[in-house]
Amino acid sequence: MQLGMIGLGRMGANMAQRLQRGGIAVTGFDPGAEARERAAAAGLPVVDGLQALLQALPAPRVLWLMVPAAAVDALLDELLPLLSPQDLLVDGGNSWYRDSQRRAQRCGQARLDYVDCGTSGGVWGLSEGYCLMLGGADDALARLRPALQALAPAPDRGWAHVGPVGAGHYCKMIHNGIEYGMMQAYAEGFALLQKKAEFALDLPQLAETWRHGSVVRSWLLDLSAEALQRNPQLQGIAPYVQDSGEGRWTVNEAIELDVPAPVITLSLLERLRSREDNSFADRLLAAMRAGFGGHALKRSADG
Amino acid sequence: MQLGMIGLGRMGANMAQRLQRGGIAVTGFDPGAEARERAAAAGLPVVDGLQALLQALPAPRVLWLMVPAAAVDALLDELLPLLSPQDLLVDGGNSWYRDSQRRAQRCGQARLDYVDCGTSGGVWGLSEGYCLMLGGADDALARLRPALQALAPAPDRGWAHVGPVGAGHYCKMIHNGIEYGMMQAYAEGFALLQKKAEFALDLPQLAETWRHGSVVRSWLLDLSAEALQRNPQLQGIAPYVQDSGEGRWTVNEAIELDVPAPVITLSLLERLRSREDNSFADRLLAAMRAGFGGHALKRSADG
Amino acid sequence: MQLGMIGLGRMGANMAQRLQRGGIAVTGFDPGAEARERAAAAGLPVVDGLQALLQALPAPRVLWLMVPAAAVDALLDELLPLLSPQDLLVDGGNSWYRDSQRRAQRCGQARLDYVDCGTSGGVWGLSEGYCLMLGGADDALARLRPALQALAPAPDRGWAHVGPVGAGHYCKMIHNGIEYGMMQAYAEGFALLQKKAEFALDLPQLAETWRHGSVVRSWLLDLSAEALQRNPQLQGIAPYVQDSGEGRWTVNEAIELDVPAPVITLSLLERLRSREDNSFADRLLAAMRAGFGGHALKRSADG
Amino acid sequence: MQLGMIGLGRMGANMAQRLQRGGIAVTGFDPGAEARERAAAAGLPVVDGLQALLQALPAPRVLWLMVPAAAVDALLDELLPLLSPQDLLVDGGNSWYRDSQRRAQRCGQARLDYVDCGTSGGVWGLSEGYCLMLGGADDALARLRPALQALAPAPDRGWAHVGPVGAGHYCKMIHNGIEYGMMQAYAEGFALLQKKAEFALDLPQLAETWRHGSVVRSWLLDLSAEALQRNPQLQGIAPYVQDSGEGRWTVNEAIELDVPAPVITLSLLERLRSREDNSFADRLLAAMRAGFGGHALKRSADG
Repeated sequence: MQLGMIGLGRMGANMAQRLQRGGIAVTGFDPGAEARERAAAAGLPVVDGLQALLQALPAPRVLWLMVPAAAVDALLDELLPLLSPQDLLVDGGNSWYRDSQRRAQRCGQARLDYVDCGTSGGVWGLSEGYCLMLGGADDALARLRPALQALAPAPDRGWAHVGPVGAGHYCKMIHNGIEYGMMQAYAEGFALLQKKAEFALDLPQLAETWRHGSVVRSWLLDLSAEALQRNPQLQGIAPYVQDSGEGRWTVNEAIELDVPAPVITLSLLERLRSREDNSFADRLLAAMRAGFGGHALKRSADG
Repeated sequence: MQLGMIGLGRMGANMAQRLQRGGIAVTGFDPGAEARERAAAAGLPVVDGLQALLQALPAPRVLWLMVPAAAVDALLDELLPLLSPQDLLVDGGNSWYRDSQRRAQRCGQARLDYVDCGTSGGVWGLSEGYCLMLGGADDALARLRPALQALAPAPDRGWAHVGPVGAGHYCKMIHNGIEYGMMQAYAEGFALLQKKAEFALDLPQLAETWRHGSVVRSWLLDLSAEALQRNPQLQGIAPYVQDSGEGRWTVNEAIELDVPAPVITLSLLERLRSREDNSFADRLLAAMRAGFGGHALKRSADG
Repeated sequence: MQLGMIGLGRMGANMAQRLQRGGIAVTGFDPGAEARERAAAAGLPVVDGLQALLQALPAPRVLWLMVPAAAVDALLDELLPLLSPQDLLVDGGNSWYRDSQRRAQRCGQARLDYVDCGTSGGVWGLSEGYCLMLGGADDALARLRPALQALAPAPDRGWAHVGPVGAGHYCKMIHNGIEYGMMQAYAEGFALLQKKAEFALDLPQLAETWRHGSVVRSWLLDLSAEALQRNPQLQGIAPYVQDSGEGRWTVNEAIELDVPAPVITLSLLERLRSREDNSFADRLLAAMRAGFGGHALKRSADG
Repeated sequence: MQLGMIGLGRMGANMAQRLQRGGIAVTGFDPGAEARERAAAAGLPVVDGLQALLQALPAPRVLWLMVPAAAVDALLDELLPLLSPQDLLVDGGNSWYRDSQRRAQRCGQARLDYVDCGTSGGVWGLSEGYCLMLGGADDALARLRPALQALAPAPDRGWAHVGPVGAGHYCKMIHNGIEYGMMQAYAEGFALLQKKAEFALDLPQLAETWRHGSVVRSWLLDLSAEALQRNPQLQGIAPYVQDSGEGRWTVNEAIELDVPAPVITLSLLERLRSREDNSFADRLLAAMRAGFGGHALKRSADG
């Protein structure tokens, strides 16, 4: 099987490499010269333009997109005029599922196949395999099968055809919502261990212990144990937590579906909170307290 | 009616003054010389010891305690040996209702009457009257009636005998829990108005407008409008919100009663959060994200 | 001043009446015959078609829309061809502010004026006046001034020009978010009072007491006191809480603005929760507990 | 090594069996005849009284308690008069850590050793090993070492001496708090998948897929996959979720430590909510909405 990988960032380059190891002939392209060079140095056949990529692949082509969600539409604008009926596009990035449905429809009008693939596994996917949730038509999935088997952790494990186009990214979105909740649960728990001066607990030891036999053992705990081992006080790390879209979409979706998801929702809100500087809400609360109770206010530097 | 006021801080001194205005003969005492002098300067007869206070009052005495919750037990240790049967103690501070029940029992063994009084109104109570929730025996309440009528905003309004000892402070505790939730709701709302750069909203104008005819009009909104009028950007006020115990007790009580109170609970947690410095939970979240996604970490100064 | 009121439901009919009382000449229209008859019976001049309404008004006309948010676009489709430049449309309903901005632009292309008006006060507005938050151009607002003075609780009180079109409904949206949070805070508090069997508290008494002098006094408390007075155990009322859109929009907006609003958010989620039947999440939790702990499951009837 | 196991319920009986497999000579006792018979049938030497148990063990004795937290004090009342200095008691149940500290002090006065052991693993511990968090003195831990090695999933893995007495149960309490949060995150996520009728997702398939390579893989996911496999619609399972104490303690502790733990807290509150019948808060919300908006109320059967 031959496949073109568009987008050779952290995820795309690793996936290309794992596909190669699995016997898939991959040709790569990235608009950035640096990303192309890095991938070429790692042994990936790389071309320097979309046109060249399409020529390098036998018809009907299979193109796997690993680009930021915000870049997909522009890429399709460029790609579509160059493609031929039966070419197959896979969006393996973190697109919103409604966007994927819209894009699949657009591609369908040009008789192109479209598959949305939620991809989990992060930087560890290269060695451990990726978990893939795919939405699309049966025959499109059948064409992708060798690639999926190579990317997944083991044959017939860790990938699934979950429904029509959109379903793949929907499942990935919810997956990430769960991830937010789990991460927040661990974060709160370890904060409660760390704050308990009375016991002077050894967090790396405890995380490592929980990895074996406990109800909370998980891959995220494995990572936490490693992070705490390296840096038990998490020194030098700012309490500043980014989010990348799926959490927000999950919260909006939950509300649209009338399904209360308080823990996933609060996990997102805590991330927003971590990035707040000089919260207006908190200042108003302090001012109100002073207003009715005569409580002294803590002054800030900007006063 | 004659009454001894113990504790001449912000609340006690104001209440003594309102009682005087209502025709109650009040004698005051505070362990702090400064508080005594301030109250005396404001026209309150003040004595400089508990013994003197008790001698100044006709038997059976009425003593109103306005001291910090943490100081009540020590005060009782000192007072009890000096009191006589039928003397009546009112705890008008923010004690935990279980403590009030315990103290009432202790006083009962010495044949003293005990009333717990939840007091709301803050520094505005002097001019607008206090809202009083009282727990205790009928005859104790009957003896207090003139004082209650004087303290309340209007005769037979704003005070109530809500149950046996403990019930007064229980109701005040829940009252404060509600207060936390309302304050947080306003704080979030105004933060959303303030952040909406697109409209450059005039917060003092809006708060003032809402005071008339809107569903959210309230006394806390009156205070917010005033605070925003004085300082529309809340400049110089640190985003640091204290809590004084009743919120915590409410959350614990809710859990003990198996009653979910998410909004009151979250309101407390937001206050804890406002006082956090360099959250360990957030740092661990950032470290985990870096661990699985290779996301760049924001570094802090302590690294 | 003359004004056409479109939509004679609960809100529209009451507002027309208050305008009349304030000396404004109002002509009303509603697509429903029943609503028209009810309004006519209450003394409002009513016509039975849009065309008739427009003929009844002097140019340039002022039309006030009190229709469901979902009906505004269709109404504009019908109205726009019939209107003339300088006619002024006011949307006094609960539209999403982005919709109002879009509609204002559409109207602007036809040289019509557009004002969005967030209206608070509910069924009590007729007697107590409405709180109005208006977005639009200065001259449009100037034309509306007599109507605003009549609708508001008092002259120059309770209405404000808060910004350009969109700002009115934005402020109303946030207002309702705050309302959700306040309502939830009271609801939780009273639930904690009700559940405390030990004290057998009298909820109507307590609500009434808090109305005078307490920090939590508010108009929503006035309503709660009344509701509890009428029905202290709230018998016959299902624990089923609707929401009408603004809460959802507020939560989405908060996330878009990166402003954590946990209390407003949780208030919405509690409403969703109140309407859930046979929660899948809770059943999975129960199944998981059984899975690791061997805990017995409570069976449901559908098993 | 010889050891007496007191409490032969699900946990105690399994642990005794795993100890035996690991070469530890265990004698068991349970106050219930049925539990004793079941354990005896499974091959455990069982005695029918505490006295007999103590006689069966060489001095200084090692006694492992696997009884409900609420039964520990009464058991100690019975046991202490029968024990001799240097006997060692291990509380392997889910006691509150402050209770364990108090009990250790009481035992210390009788020159008995006391170790608190947080035990995780549930019914799967028998086959997969238990995760053990131990608090106590070094020499007490040294005496227990063979038993810990036998109970743990693998030698030197999954057990740790985490601090002085109390630290073991403290860590287990936090562990369970994390567990609540993780469970709730999964539950919400699967509910969002289940409700999405548009995609008709296959939940067992998805859970199984996520087990391989995804960021959310964990042991709790393994259990969820199994539960969904067995019963994809979770039919017959009531949406009723118990809690067993540690979650409440974690929430209280978090507040005491001034550490906001919103996700763990909300997870507990959702369990309380799942058990609520005819929520007073929701009924008051509905009544308030009717009060200001004239919204129709949904009636319940009790009206």
